Amino acid sequence: MSQKLCSVICARFAPRSLASRVLTRLHSNTPSSDALAAPRVIFSGIQPTGVPHLGNYLGAMQQWVKLQNDASSNTSLIYSVVDLHAITVHQNPDALRTSKKEMLAALLAVGLDPQKCTIFFQSDVPAHSELMWILSCSASMGYLSRMTQWKSKLDLDENANPLDPSSKTKLKLGLFSYPVLQAADILIHKATHVPVGHDQSQHLEFARECAAGFNHLAGSKVLVQPETLLSLAKRVMALDRPTHKMSKSAPNPKSRILLTDSSSAISKKLRVALTDSIEGVTYDPSARPGVSNLIEIAFNLDSSNHGAADPAEYAKEFEGLSLKALKDKVAEVVDGHLAPIRARFEEIVGGDGKILEEAAQIGAEKARKSAESTMKEVRHAVGF
Amino acid sequence: MSQKLCSVICARFAPRSLASRVLTRLHSNTPSSDALAAPRVIFSGIQPTGVPHLGNYLGAMQQWVKLQNDASSNTSLIYSVVDLHAITVHQNPDALRTSKKEMLAALLAVGLDPQKCTIFFQSDVPAHSELMWILSCSASMGYLSRMTQWKSKLDLDENANPLDPSSKTKLKLGLFSYPVLQAADILIHKATHVPVGHDQSQHLEFARECAAGFNHLAGSKVLVQPETLLSLAKRVMALDRPTHKMSKSAPNPKSRILLTDSSSAISKKLRVALTDSIEGVTYDPSARPGVSNLIEIAFNLDSSNHGAADPAEYAKEFEGLSLKALKDKVAEVVDGHLAPIRARFEEIVGGDGKILEEAAQIGAEKARKSAESTMKEVRHAVGF
Repeated sequence: MSQKLCSVICARFAPRSLASRVLTRLHSNTPSSDALAAPRVIFSGIQPTGVPHLGNYLGAMQQWVKLQNDASSNTSLIYSVVDLHAITVHQNPDALRTSKKEMLAALLAVGLDPQKCTIFFQSDVPAHSELMWILSCSASMGYLSRMTQWKSKLDLDENANPLDPSSKTKLKLGLFSYPVLQAADILIHKATHVPVGHDQSQHLEFARECAAGFNHLAGSKVLVQPETLLSLAKRVMALDRPTHKMSKSAPNPKSRILLTDSSSAISKKLRVALTDSIEGVTYDPSARPGVSNLIEIAFNLDSSNHGAADPAEYAKEFEGLSLKALKDKVAEVVDGHLAPIRARFEEIVGGDGKILEEAAQIGAEKARKSAESTMKEVRHAVGF
Repeated sequence: MSQKLCSVICARFAPRSLASRVLTRLHSNTPSSDALAAPRVIFSGIQPTGVPHLGNYLGAMQQWVKLQNDASSNTSLIYSVVDLHAITVHQNPDALRTSKKEMLAALLAVGLDPQKCTIFFQSDVPAHSELMWILSCSASMGYLSRMTQWKSKLDLDENANPLDPSSKTKLKLGLFSYPVLQAADILIHKATHVPVGHDQSQHLEFARECAAGFNHLAGSKVLVQPETLLSLAKRVMALDRPTHKMSKSAPNPKSRILLTDSSSAISKKLRVALTDSIEGVTYDPSARPGVSNLIEIAFNLDSSNHGAADPAEYAKEFEGLSLKALKDKVAEVVDGHLAPIRARFEEIVGGDGKILEEAAQIGAEKARKSAESTMKEVRHAVGF
């Protein structure tokens, strides 16, 4: 699976260019400030990439859990493992099946509760594809061809045309048209808010346009235009190349820490993490990306944080340490945070697989119900 | 609705270029010659264009009924009213709803039996869209851009590129990608044979390639490559412009005879049908298109045919008649054929709508079952 595919349609960085639009700040440990306001539906998706790494966890999953724990009673949370998106590049079927299970198990292990949220496999709800088709009947080819995602996935330049000789032999319809499926994912659940990463902001904008276009043709407000949810999600860098994002597809397995890594695996990976030869510990992401990445990881996983408000303040705690001692400290924090997750994961995947099966079934039923309720209106609006 | 949209994915002319491929000849009144051979699944679709005209009837529906009446016990017939395709151009929702009902009523009125065939609205089976998405993940943009259908629907020339300035403002993803949905329509029911018109032959070839490509990736023969079914379907020309096909969208309502037209409407329309000023009745499609069209219509609807083997022989029966008298004769034949259809149609649409509702429900259930059985294999092959 390509590095870019690992990117999730999820909480990461809210793009500055969207700052002027209505943004809802997500407070990590206090109830949402608009708890008493209009009902909110938050949708987010994650690729079935198998056991997640710290990048997936801090970039999305941890936020999902916070959203769950902070949610007021009028907030619905809908989280999808987007396997229909995964097949826009070829997948080994058995590997995909395993990856799906591992991702679902991890979502449960980090604390998501199938009773409190809707957690489901996208392919369990055919209505996502159905709405995708309906939306595609008014989605402009010109607009889609200007999207950058398919270009970056094929390593083409920004001005590439889907039918250039260099594109058309490689480009499949699914990869070209998947922003429409993504729009359907969001709109079918009438999501009011979507946490988006920078690379997904144009897709959310596209979803908003799909909704507006559909409503215009239908002459009524059937679909909801979702808003961007500003989140405090974290970006985690590769241990061996701290200028690149931590990624499942990087060839070096020591570049990432998986949620299920053992204590000793965590220690070993951190011990060989690329840092620098500057003495002492300081937080300086541009001059010391490796060390700063380790500090950020520990800051974000350390429940006490030593009372620090940010990684820079947190780093002061370790000022006098050697880099080796810092790595041991970070390993301790990481292992402390992951140990219970690891144990729950084993519990979930071990045994007869009933926990996963049941969770998938509960999620599928809830998601189908939510989707069906929108599709009834959509089908009527279309003339079916 | 555009004239081209009225064209159906159905029996019309088997393209000569396909003659070398395995073709199964459809005998109109004798049991299929391979009744004892492998089970056959025949799929065909028709657009929900409202009350059909004689062109729809002789071009497709009459063949469907013959297929039903001649079918051996190991032949399954699956007929779909393809409303998902209809929305590739904008539709008025209420008009589409009415047109769907009228088309279904007409299919029942001409003699199709929901117990013997599977007759269903495409939008009642979301799995069609689901398989469309899955197939689109391996459908090449280059291949799709070479298809002619979207070009003719937008009145673009054969070399048009979907992203030319002249195309991209008009072209929607649905119109561009609908051959993939059409492939899904066919493949999801494991159709072995598809009656195709000339303008659809490249779409059937595309469906065959989709099946082959999917099977190759899956490493097993999950999908069936459908074959062309050679039919003896008829082409009916407009009464006012006998060099153009009879069409629902032509502005002049007198250009077409609807299956529900009254005796007097039929007479009136035929009386003003464009013929020529040559004396007497002869069959000569190129020199006398108007007269020949009337002769063909009568030949195809006249149950006795006066023992004639073809329209030319049939025409001899009327040699001495004036054109006015010929028109009266044709009106009599048409009315004689349509009267019972008209009566059944009224019976079906009249009353409480229960007949239609029940037929749609039976069809949807059968089609869903057929689709689901394939989708189980497809989902497993993909890794879901």
